[in-house]
Amino acid sequence: MSNTATRILVGVIGIPLFIFLIYKGGIYFLCLSLILSSIALWEFYLMFKKEKYFPLIMIPIAVSAIIIVGNYLNDGFAITFLPLAAILIFSSEIFRKEKKNPLNSLIVIGGLVYITVPFVMLNKIISHQSFNYIIFIFVLIWTCDTMAFFGGKFFGKHKLSEISPKKTWEGSIAGFLFTIIAALIVYYFYSNEISLKDALCIGIMAGIFSQVGDLFESLIKRKLGVKDSSNIIPGHGGVLDRFDSLIFVTPLIFLYLEFSKFFIYNFRV
Amino acid sequence: MSNTATRILVGVIGIPLFIFLIYKGGIYFLCLSLILSSIALWEFYLMFKKEKYFPLIMIPIAVSAIIIVGNYLNDGFAITFLPLAAILIFSSEIFRKEKKNPLNSLIVIGGLVYITVPFVMLNKIISHQSFNYIIFIFVLIWTCDTMAFFGGKFFGKHKLSEISPKKTWEGSIAGFLFTIIAALIVYYFYSNEISLKDALCIGIMAGIFSQVGDLFESLIKRKLGVKDSSNIIPGHGGVLDRFDSLIFVTPLIFLYLEFSKFFIYNFRV
Repeated sequence: MSNTATRILVGVIGIPLFIFLIYKGGIYFLCLSLILSSIALWEFYLMFKKEKYFPLIMIPIAVSAIIIVGNYLNDGFAITFLPLAAILIFSSEIFRKEKKNPLNSLIVIGGLVYITVPFVMLNKIISHQSFNYIIFIFVLIWTCDTMAFFGGKFFGKHKLSEISPKKTWEGSIAGFLFTIIAALIVYYFYSNEISLKDALCIGIMAGIFSQVGDLFESLIKRKLGVKDSSNIIPGHGGVLDRFDSLIFVTPLIFLYLEFSKFFIYNFRV
Repeated sequence: MSNTATRILVGVIGIPLFIFLIYKGGIYFLCLSLILSSIALWEFYLMFKKEKYFPLIMIPIAVSAIIIVGNYLNDGFAITFLPLAAILIFSSEIFRKEKKNPLNSLIVIGGLVYITVPFVMLNKIISHQSFNYIIFIFVLIWTCDTMAFFGGKFFGKHKLSEISPKKTWEGSIAGFLFTIIAALIVYYFYSNEISLKDALCIGIMAGIFSQVGDLFESLIKRKLGVKDSSNIIPGHGGVLDRFDSLIFVTPLIFLYLEFSKFFIYNFRV
């Protein structure tokens, strides 16, 4: 089967399954999060291992799972456990028989901040917001990604960054503009569920930072000399390649929603 | 003036000043925290810069100050702001003109976790616990450090770790045992302020992790080929050299105190 056919087949099965698990939410999405975050962390640490670093792999994946499940069961667990995990990760470095390097522990902690924290937040968003709200976020990220691709393909002239030689300013601007348009369309149909302010703010964040997240992951791959984070999804590369934008945008949207709640709580009630 | 004389003179002025600022607490200790954490971060980042990494320096120091002051003014600020800061630090890496490297951003975030978070917690401990309680923690760390030194000097035979060639198992065990003894002595005199359980638990944590923290900082210096983190304190080396144990033990003690409160709150009240 050709690569494109595999890619389409996986998309046809994978995307509906993904949306179904979000729809079911709760423990279903928790299980999906555990699988995705564990693979993404494994990819992240393994990329550094191909260079000359030796981060622990299985222990931080276990720590990450504890943080995600713990916070699902008891809100606030992640905040309590992360500093403790950091101290234990720093400590474990000095007890290694060989390849001791403080950078290993910084890579391990970086992976938890970059991958685990967004998944904790994603579970929290999914348990607090309506299904439509979550789909709204995904639609924005997918719109941005797709339109940046087609915008670049049809109008691309000026190179965006040496990190990703194929990306252009034209594509990036198209991605941003269509994300805002997508946000406005969603607002038009769901104005009873989302305010214009929320739609626009989340649209702007998604339009900018899903692209930045993509570039950041490309920078990691480029620096470490890898093409895909792994080949685990047939035709699609690695989990990190597929979810680089989502994990980057999630903390911003989470904080935006928390902050809005904070303001409502403090100034309106 | 000889190095030893300078060292003693700085100690005679520095330690009482330090204790005085803890006694005053509040904004006095906040200012001290800002100075110490900024210098420690500057030392931390500069050590990596001497190698071949190029972490941002001034921006994370500013971020760190915002986190410490923000959390002083509004409890919980650090938790909200840190993930946002992480996303912005990752983002800033892709916009640098040169020397782009994801490891730079992992070093920057590592510094905030290693240095800023403990100072945030230290301010919280100081505003919630009595002066005697704080001094108790410092006494334990100083006892451990001093007794490990003398224990090693008089009985040292078996090398502890290749990270610090001068340290011995005998010294390490002496440090641990005298820390427990110090905790029991403090309990004897202040049993109205601290329970035996708290004294013992904090004693055990300080006796082990102040030594681990010391070794972890030595590992950083050894790997990056530096002798002292800086020469900013005449005769004493850098701030990080002086506070490596404290910043390592603080999160553990903080979480222990929070957790005890949690238990008291949930099971006794």
